[in-house]
Amino acid sequence: MRSVLTVGSVAFDSIKTPLGEASRIVGGAATYFSIAASFFTQVRLVAVVGDDFGPEQLQVFDGRQIDLSGLHRLAGETFRWKGEYSDDLNTRETIYTHLNVFEQFHPRVPDAFRDSPFVFLANIHPSLQLEVLEQVNTPEFVALDTMNLWIEGSPAELRQALKEVHVVIINDEEARELSGESNLVKAARVIRGLGPKRVVIKRGENGVLMTHRDGFFAAPGMPLEKVCDPTGAGDAFAGGFVGYLAAASQLSDAIVIQAVIAGSTMASFAVEDIGLDRLLRLTDTEVKARFADFKQLTQFDAL
Amino acid sequence: MRSVLTVGSVAFDSIKTPLGEASRIVGGAATYFSIAASFFTQVRLVAVVGDDFGPEQLQVFDGRQIDLSGLHRLAGETFRWKGEYSDDLNTRETIYTHLNVFEQFHPRVPDAFRDSPFVFLANIHPSLQLEVLEQVNTPEFVALDTMNLWIEGSPAELRQALKEVHVVIINDEEARELSGESNLVKAARVIRGLGPKRVVIKRGENGVLMTHRDGFFAAPGMPLEKVCDPTGAGDAFAGGFVGYLAAASQLSDAIVIQAVIAGSTMASFAVEDIGLDRLLRLTDTEVKARFADFKQLTQFDAL
Repeated sequence: MRSVLTVGSVAFDSIKTPLGEASRIVGGAATYFSIAASFFTQVRLVAVVGDDFGPEQLQVFDGRQIDLSGLHRLAGETFRWKGEYSDDLNTRETIYTHLNVFEQFHPRVPDAFRDSPFVFLANIHPSLQLEVLEQVNTPEFVALDTMNLWIEGSPAELRQALKEVHVVIINDEEARELSGESNLVKAARVIRGLGPKRVVIKRGENGVLMTHRDGFFAAPGMPLEKVCDPTGAGDAFAGGFVGYLAAASQLSDAIVIQAVIAGSTMASFAVEDIGLDRLLRLTDTEVKARFADFKQLTQFDAL
Repeated sequence: MRSVLTVGSVAFDSIKTPLGEASRIVGGAATYFSIAASFFTQVRLVAVVGDDFGPEQLQVFDGRQIDLSGLHRLAGETFRWKGEYSDDLNTRETIYTHLNVFEQFHPRVPDAFRDSPFVFLANIHPSLQLEVLEQVNTPEFVALDTMNLWIEGSPAELRQALKEVHVVIINDEEARELSGESNLVKAARVIRGLGPKRVVIKRGENGVLMTHRDGFFAAPGMPLEKVCDPTGAGDAFAGGFVGYLAAASQLSDAIVIQAVIAGSTMASFAVEDIGLDRLLRLTDTEVKARFADFKQLTQFDAL
């Protein structure tokens, strides 16, 4: 079991969905990632919070194998985001994004984290992602998330970062934008041409598509009766995916494919309640049961 | 191997997509269904055409195990439809629908077809679907397709038809409209409450969701580099699904699940060229290979 280093946002989220509403709850990409990944392996978190982020907020990490010695605190307010979802949850409007202490954020990777064999660069400015990679020894596995803001606004830095990573984990819209191809088969090929050996495309309720050998592996979304809040589902996926890989003894084809299901499992839980709530009360037994549910959902006999 | 009776439209289609355009080509739900199903079993087609539908048009059925003795000819023009697809192929505009001879259509099931053990009621008015069922002995398996026009316009007749069928095969939008539930898990439950033991929800490029035991079976769409024309893909799915079941010696759980893959296989070919073109040049070997591709695409090891 090897450690995963992740660098990204720890934030206060305010969320409104048709099924629920919450104000100033703990969120952020690195938070969702860390909690999901910690079900599988040890996590090392590098992020920044303000002096408004106290012991009450830190409770979300309690009792999990998440090393917080890279969680820096600066004077000022923690990153804040507010989003509202449409009735079908497929679109969301960002009401505000206050970067606050995140505005001056330059990740400092603690010495003890530099040997991390697995690295997940959550969705932050590609220059910061590159700064992280300068501070670690040669990791065995680096995955990167990004978004339209950097694809459009910092294409040169993003291209440089993409050259340094093994896997890119993005959603379908981002894959289309990054590649300039609307067809996902072509989009994945273009993105692989930018550096990453593997492309994982998150498709929300429609599941996941991952390049594999000459083709693809695909997992449908788990049909859920209650979908409350998609916030953080993509980061929970990444946490399950990278965490599962880090826990494995080798990165065989079979393991990488199982990791997609581990990621899909974590994402399917993440959406069942508002914010982190479902992940916070999730048990290992439930994780194993849902992995088995995915097998039931998708497996069939050869002709 | 048991015969499948299908009743529905045989038409002239005019289609415009970003990758192709064709005028006055042979189409119609029953046509796509029959050709797809004939890869697996014998098909008995009941439909109506005008006197403009000649030997040239009939060639699409040549050399296939499709019995055309229920293809009636009336004086007048054949049903015509024209549609134009958006750039991403996810929406289409109907430019015109001329019912022509279809306007007076009342299906007459030939005596020799009355013992058909499998029946597929393609998307026609639910009263006509009921007329078909009155003319057949007790089939072992009846599946039904429908659309928003009948869900909104003929709800009483549709409810009556639903009581008589084993499986409903509709798309996600229709499932939501028919059930009044936006969540597909709930939608499927409501629809099962209307009669059909099983609900198959077609999701286009996002694959298929089928109720199964207490849960679901799901197949993702095959990632395709070239998607030319979605016309008839849903009917090709139904043809593969019902045809595969009819060819099987029993309707076990494993067979019904394989039938979803057989249907997905036929739909994945249907979209690769305009109109019927890809299905018309399709071979059994290609069908078997793509079924195997679906296995590669989706299968993973248990934990």
